[in-house]
Amino acid sequence: MKKIIITIIGLGHIGGSLASSLKKTYGDKISLIGIDQKPSTIKIAQQSNFFLEVSTLKKSNNIIDSRIVFVATGIHDMAKIFSDLARISFNNRIIVSDVGSIKVDIFKQALKILPKHYDFVGGHPIAGTEKIGFKNLVTDLFKDKPVFISGIRAKKDSVKLIKEIWNRLGGHVYLVSPEQHDKIFAHLSHLPHVLAFGLKNISNKSLTRQEISKYGGTSYKDYSRISMSSEQLWSEIFLSNRKNLAKGIKNFRRYLDKVERLLMTSSKEELKKLLKS
Amino acid sequence: MKKIIITIIGLGHIGGSLASSLKKTYGDKISLIGIDQKPSTIKIAQQSNFFLEVSTLKKSNNIIDSRIVFVATGIHDMAKIFSDLARISFNNRIIVSDVGSIKVDIFKQALKILPKHYDFVGGHPIAGTEKIGFKNLVTDLFKDKPVFISGIRAKKDSVKLIKEIWNRLGGHVYLVSPEQHDKIFAHLSHLPHVLAFGLKNISNKSLTRQEISKYGGTSYKDYSRISMSSEQLWSEIFLSNRKNLAKGIKNFRRYLDKVERLLMTSSKEELKKLLKS
Repeated sequence: MKKIIITIIGLGHIGGSLASSLKKTYGDKISLIGIDQKPSTIKIAQQSNFFLEVSTLKKSNNIIDSRIVFVATGIHDMAKIFSDLARISFNNRIIVSDVGSIKVDIFKQALKILPKHYDFVGGHPIAGTEKIGFKNLVTDLFKDKPVFISGIRAKKDSVKLIKEIWNRLGGHVYLVSPEQHDKIFAHLSHLPHVLAFGLKNISNKSLTRQEISKYGGTSYKDYSRISMSSEQLWSEIFLSNRKNLAKGIKNFRRYLDKVERLLMTSSKEELKKLLKS
Repeated sequence: MKKIIITIIGLGHIGGSLASSLKKTYGDKISLIGIDQKPSTIKIAQQSNFFLEVSTLKKSNNIIDSRIVFVATGIHDMAKIFSDLARISFNNRIIVSDVGSIKVDIFKQALKILPKHYDFVGGHPIAGTEKIGFKNLVTDLFKDKPVFISGIRAKKDSVKLIKEIWNRLGGHVYLVSPEQHDKIFAHLSHLPHVLAFGLKNISNKSLTRQEISKYGGTSYKDYSRISMSSEQLWSEIFLSNRKNLAKGIKNFRRYLDKVERLLMTSSKEELKKLLKS
């Protein structure tokens, strides 16, 4: 049987973890091609032994034999990657998938840019951490994590294959529309990140670095972990999901107004009720 | 040598953990008296074998022999407890200490209510969790945790004794003024709790319970842990530290305004800069 060739574009924390997980799960049944722009990342990835070939998108010899391409770059690079992929004459019917944290924008770009005979199956494993880079890859990163399949223009078999892969990597696969996805994650991920970045911002202005690191308890440490995430990644996510996020921020500001009012009027019972709700 | 008798008033998560930690560390060198109002808590505490006596404040036979009284009740009950303690004719020079999360208000009450010949040494171990109740006590809760000594009207020896106890329980002891303490914790603890309660509030309004529990990733789970904290406890903390907290909330609102503006104007570079700051 011919090996399935899977290409991963973007060998960061998620791309690297995906490569490692795929190799651990499928072993010799698959061959991986790793694509990145950065020479230093290409070098590290080559040393990992996960890949048949690691190179830039332009120089890759084997990408045309891929069955699946996972795009694991930053969100703002995806349209460019889709354009590059659109110009390749793949030898098989190709499935393009991704791992981006927002889905409406990415799906829109995919529909616009990818040729009709390409299958597109959008994906989003809820598995990011504050870590970045191939060197911080985690082999079992997707185990027991929710994985969203969201934004589909593909044959049934292609959707089934992508779902099966995430299942085999230990993920819990859910199918939702891109709109629902982005609404859910505005609240469960994007707004929490806005808040964590904000707390860091305000604490840094009011307290010394020493006070923060010496005195921060468990709750503050949880926030710091989150706010150590890449501001490059998150500014892109926030902008791509701006409508949902702005709504969340508006609601949050209303909540802060209420807390402030109850503090100023010493309304303990109402405050308790608000905290419970 | 006569045993040192230590009384703990309020046998919740912190009071219970303090009792257990003291017994583990000092063994037979101390005797503990446990005080609570709730019959069910008194019953559980009696079964723990930490205490020479567990009873209500009024019915305790041995409290007059105490060397130290730790007040581990809710903040709003402390003034009442101080008044009750002021009426007891202790057989030794007594040290009153506490474990409350705010210090300005408590110190004010202590100065006002406790007789001049009582030593007062305010304390705050940064060791709370979302758990409550004696049954959830953690013996090594204070190990490697910051412990603040803040708000002192006492002989040097008394301060030294309280510091030594927290050191022996594994805490890292810091001396700060009540004002500095409350300013620091408005940012490192109280505001983070306001934010976590707020995220819960807003998510519950916008998403279904199922969506939240099924799809929440690591960052959301950290918030949920924090927002599961007691709203009774936290409404009291928020109110007691309202001035510092209100300032933090005001700054936070300004930050949210900025984020919203940068989202609406698609200012990626400025947004990145704000997240990094």
